[in-house]
Amino acid sequence: MDGDHHADFETGLTKDDKLELRVWLRLLSCSNRIEQAVRQGLRQEFDVTLPRFDVLSQLDRAPEGLTMGALSRRLMVTNGNVTGMVDRLVGEGLVERQPSPHDRRAQLVRLTPEGKTAFAKMIPEHQSLVERQFEGLSRADLRGLHALLGELKESIKKPQSAADRRERN
Amino acid sequence: MDGDHHADFETGLTKDDKLELRVWLRLLSCSNRIEQAVRQGLRQEFDVTLPRFDVLSQLDRAPEGLTMGALSRRLMVTNGNVTGMVDRLVGEGLVERQPSPHDRRAQLVRLTPEGKTAFAKMIPEHQSLVERQFEGLSRADLRGLHALLGELKESIKKPQSAADRRERN
Repeated sequence: MDGDHHADFETGLTKDDKLELRVWLRLLSCSNRIEQAVRQGLRQEFDVTLPRFDVLSQLDRAPEGLTMGALSRRLMVTNGNVTGMVDRLVGEGLVERQPSPHDRRAQLVRLTPEGKTAFAKMIPEHQSLVERQFEGLSRADLRGLHALLGELKESIKKPQSAADRRERN
Repeated sequence: MDGDHHADFETGLTKDDKLELRVWLRLLSCSNRIEQAVRQGLRQEFDVTLPRFDVLSQLDRAPEGLTMGALSRRLMVTNGNVTGMVDRLVGEGLVERQPSPHDRRAQLVRLTPEGKTAFAKMIPEHQSLVERQFEGLSRADLRGLHALLGELKESIKKPQSAADRRERN
């Protein structure tokens, strides 16, 4: 049981398992661990949940505002999951809804000045939390990982789109 | 809005963002997309949820059985989340609880023969779902990604352990 506190999705793998599965379980293990660390850090420092931080972060990157649909897609979750959180942020004065200048029927969600100020305080701690996770990697490793994950992202898009088309038909 | 259906955590990034953050959001985007594809495929083909598949998968890799603690650690979730699922699998005859041969007070969870048979039917489809996500990558890319994610995993362990120690003290 020694060392078992580092157990993860990869623990039970054997040499017989295919490379794709090994890469996938390693990717998932890394993603879960980093997410746990970021979640814990944000909770301790700012008493903010990770989904809430993610909403503020996406709005901070879109000064003109986002439709609820665009916000949900960037957060990779369904619209329904985001609505309640945006409602609460509006209630707290951190976020506002405005009609879109291009389409009066569409509503755009964006940070209020208070929201921008509150989020700006979290940026350096979040940045340092993320950097700490990667500190064992050289710049060359980081660049290599960024490039390979870019290829993976391209690879994922194709089957996804095919599945999407099947679902729509 | 064209191409926005591929929006994800990376969409709002700018050149000013640090490489670590870019790598992290790309990793998270890939992980979420692959998980969505696997989740959807397993539901369509076997009407099985991903957490349930993950429990069966970890037990399949541990023929002598696992304690609930070891199972939870491998699934990277808290004990409480797994207990209900294992209870249901026991009720369906796919999983059994047995006293550990090494420690009569400890219970081991393992697949029943029925559980092994049910899980074996899912393996090829799961394997093919995972392989499809990675099919745009060469073998060299896959090996490179596996190695770099290995370094990342080592890098993550250090701050994690420090945080664990703080929590225990």
